[in-house]
Amino acid sequence: MHAADRLFELARERALLTSAASVLGWDQETYLPLRGVAWRARQLAWLSARAHELATSREWLATLEEAEVQNDGADPVLSANLREFRHETDRATRLPVELVARASETSSLAKQAWAEARKKSDFSIFRDHLDAMVDIAREKADHWGYATEPYDALVAGYERGADTAKLSSRLDPLRDPLRELAAQAVARSAEHPVDLPDGPYPADTQRRLNREIAESVGFDFEAGRIDTVTHPFCTGLGPYDTRLTTRYRENDFTDSLFGVLHEAGHGLYDQGLPAPDFGLPAGSPISLGIHESQSRLWENHVGGSRAFWERWLPRAAALFPCLAPLGLDDFLAAVRRAEFSCIRVEADEATYDLHILLRFDLERRIMRGELAVDDIPAAWNDGFRELFGFVPPDDANGCLQDIHWAMGGFGYFATYSLGNINAAQLCAAARLDPVVSAACDKADYLPLLGWMRERVHRHGSVHFPDDLVRRATGADPSTADYLAHLKRRYL
Amino acid sequence: MHAADRLFELARERALLTSAASVLGWDQETYLPLRGVAWRARQLAWLSARAHELATSREWLATLEEAEVQNDGADPVLSANLREFRHETDRATRLPVELVARASETSSLAKQAWAEARKKSDFSIFRDHLDAMVDIAREKADHWGYATEPYDALVAGYERGADTAKLSSRLDPLRDPLRELAAQAVARSAEHPVDLPDGPYPADTQRRLNREIAESVGFDFEAGRIDTVTHPFCTGLGPYDTRLTTRYRENDFTDSLFGVLHEAGHGLYDQGLPAPDFGLPAGSPISLGIHESQSRLWENHVGGSRAFWERWLPRAAALFPCLAPLGLDDFLAAVRRAEFSCIRVEADEATYDLHILLRFDLERRIMRGELAVDDIPAAWNDGFRELFGFVPPDDANGCLQDIHWAMGGFGYFATYSLGNINAAQLCAAARLDPVVSAACDKADYLPLLGWMRERVHRHGSVHFPDDLVRRATGADPSTADYLAHLKRRYL
Repeated sequence: MHAADRLFELARERALLTSAASVLGWDQETYLPLRGVAWRARQLAWLSARAHELATSREWLATLEEAEVQNDGADPVLSANLREFRHETDRATRLPVELVARASETSSLAKQAWAEARKKSDFSIFRDHLDAMVDIAREKADHWGYATEPYDALVAGYERGADTAKLSSRLDPLRDPLRELAAQAVARSAEHPVDLPDGPYPADTQRRLNREIAESVGFDFEAGRIDTVTHPFCTGLGPYDTRLTTRYRENDFTDSLFGVLHEAGHGLYDQGLPAPDFGLPAGSPISLGIHESQSRLWENHVGGSRAFWERWLPRAAALFPCLAPLGLDDFLAAVRRAEFSCIRVEADEATYDLHILLRFDLERRIMRGELAVDDIPAAWNDGFRELFGFVPPDDANGCLQDIHWAMGGFGYFATYSLGNINAAQLCAAARLDPVVSAACDKADYLPLLGWMRERVHRHGSVHFPDDLVRRATGADPSTADYLAHLKRRYL
Repeated sequence: MHAADRLFELARERALLTSAASVLGWDQETYLPLRGVAWRARQLAWLSARAHELATSREWLATLEEAEVQNDGADPVLSANLREFRHETDRATRLPVELVARASETSSLAKQAWAEARKKSDFSIFRDHLDAMVDIAREKADHWGYATEPYDALVAGYERGADTAKLSSRLDPLRDPLRELAAQAVARSAEHPVDLPDGPYPADTQRRLNREIAESVGFDFEAGRIDTVTHPFCTGLGPYDTRLTTRYRENDFTDSLFGVLHEAGHGLYDQGLPAPDFGLPAGSPISLGIHESQSRLWENHVGGSRAFWERWLPRAAALFPCLAPLGLDDFLAAVRRAEFSCIRVEADEATYDLHILLRFDLERRIMRGELAVDDIPAAWNDGFRELFGFVPPDDANGCLQDIHWAMGGFGYFATYSLGNINAAQLCAAARLDPVVSAACDKADYLPLLGWMRERVHRHGSVHFPDDLVRRATGADPSTADYLAHLKRRYL
């Protein structure tokens, strides 16, 4: 047997285990009884320890090395698989077991403290925990290694081919135009504010509409499903098993609907990955920035479009009679309403990236040692004022709002903006295809999905994100399409 | 560390793995998307291979032996744990790996063939597969070993302390009295047949009533839940995580309600096992015959009683207005209606055991080599005629109706009747307690549950079934209470 074949066998075996853990994780968010949590935590810890053993076993390491030696570079997919396995393996083996255990324990305590701190809006409760998480992030970065600064090593865990300098060069120039655009969009919305009727929107009827829409954009319900949770997400539990989740507000059906379009975007990418390569890089998403490009594509470029609602508003009004008096223009003005808000996860498309730019800037400074943990609340408020023109009323609405730092997720936030940027560039390129464009204008999105399948999904992790975008669109990654899209939509 | 401590540690580790597999199995029956089945099968095969490795590892075997040597017999719980570990370990290690794999593969094909054969009512499609499953069952019996006949070794896998002779001595004497009782009950029902109104019984309203009733009998929804499936079951996924399932017929709410009481009976036993001993015999059910005693207790002795419906019929009629005109006597006559039918799973309490006696007799003869596979359809029909007075219209309604033989489940059926017998004896003994009895008469079942918790559930696998019944009731196991119960209810 060639070493690569054995390597793939081992990787698929590991995928059986990690995907089993994903089922348990999904169940924990959806259906696990309250008192079952402690045992579930033990199950997941056990499975994750076994997965780590497999990912760092002597046989795995030796087989990977042998496959690398045997590889003549002729097969780009094989080379990409080996490249990604090497990346993952190095990251897994470079962290001492002691550090992994300490990080996990520190993070558990940090999450608890963060929840309490946010509830009481008292940064002092979280302060020491955040300090410990920052130290751990730096330690990890030192073990992983980096070319220029520790933050590079953290970013590399979420976005292949990216580092601090590249993210800075992509995001920093957005600062002024986005600030200006957001301010104008907010001012325009304030001139003619439109509210949607506040219901009733029964959850069961929302569920029905969401399902019709998810089906119409191509989500395969024979290979996936939608369940109800507190914090929506999308997770792939195996080839042909993609689970979306949502929640329902009975006074606002658009919250769940846009949420489902967002998660369905993640799910469509998942369903478009080559199923036979499940467990191999060639069958896995390449990065969070690409994953988020697919969710934002369906949420914003599709779900925010006039053509989409020309088709779906009549259906929604048939299901929710309170919508009947509303014209399409007013409906669009309502769902596209731009407003400054303190909370990132509630932000609209026009103001969302300002939240990311703030966090990216703070993280970069924290990791460079330029910003002490004690100074974060003040720095948050200063940065927020510069971008939004006002200061959050308290830290719960400021630096305590996101769980990411309590989880040690430094380097993650920027991928949200990369997703927005990539979504716009991919969508603009796809619409240059007259078939895709004509279909989109009639709210038929299967040609658009076909384009994404062909140019993005089916490649898995073969190409780095920038290269994938370049191959798909024929142009270097750029923020031009994104700014143009926001201007068209909001100004 | 004492060997027993290390042994328990290993057993609990194995329980993490086997209970993770149970989560995946539950998900497969409840929520798994259609196309996710193939990957799920691979996940479960992998997990089950790992569990088998742990259950037969050198460390496990050596630690068990050492613990047995160290055991001075002073602690009955420790001794029972070791006794049951030895039983499981011997059974697991005595089967050659080749046979386990062949049995699994043969059974997969047999189940497919059985489904087709039943659909077409054509025994010839199943014949060779059944023959192979019988051979495999005999092979397994030879490996496991037995005192008198191969069937003993199969029975021992489901019912601790039982063998063919003991089952025969318990079940054979039921034959004539049950046949007579069933005939009389059916005749009486036919004199004054009462039908329930056929709805509407909306599934959501059934779900609500089922949950109220399950809660009222003591099922803990913080440590369990009810979901919807095609073939209802109850499964324990961990301490404090017991999952019931049911299905809904919109024209008959009693089907789901009695199903939920049955599964809740299993679930209450599960929730009553000592949680800290999860994964050890002391925290596990002792046998199918005891498990089934708990499900039949709640389904028939509680759910079939007048006091139960004095409390719950008004509530049901409030939820389902079509029931309002119905008096309690007519309602009871309808739910206690006795009818001969061909299908075991649809049989009422008065006729159920006749189905079991038939299968027990055939299995015993098959395993003794007295009945050839080719002769099973005719033997089934002959036996059926003797018990029921008529012959099934075809093999789909005859020897092809149950999946058990395709799964290799020879020796399983008798435990259904043991469950009925034990339920009656336990219930009669519990009602000798005046507090339990008075509460039951007011449809307050928490004292009855408390009695079962104390006398049955909390003992896990410490006592063998007969001994457990003896200790709980103060009398040797007997069918007297069961026959008395059926006579009271039906004659």
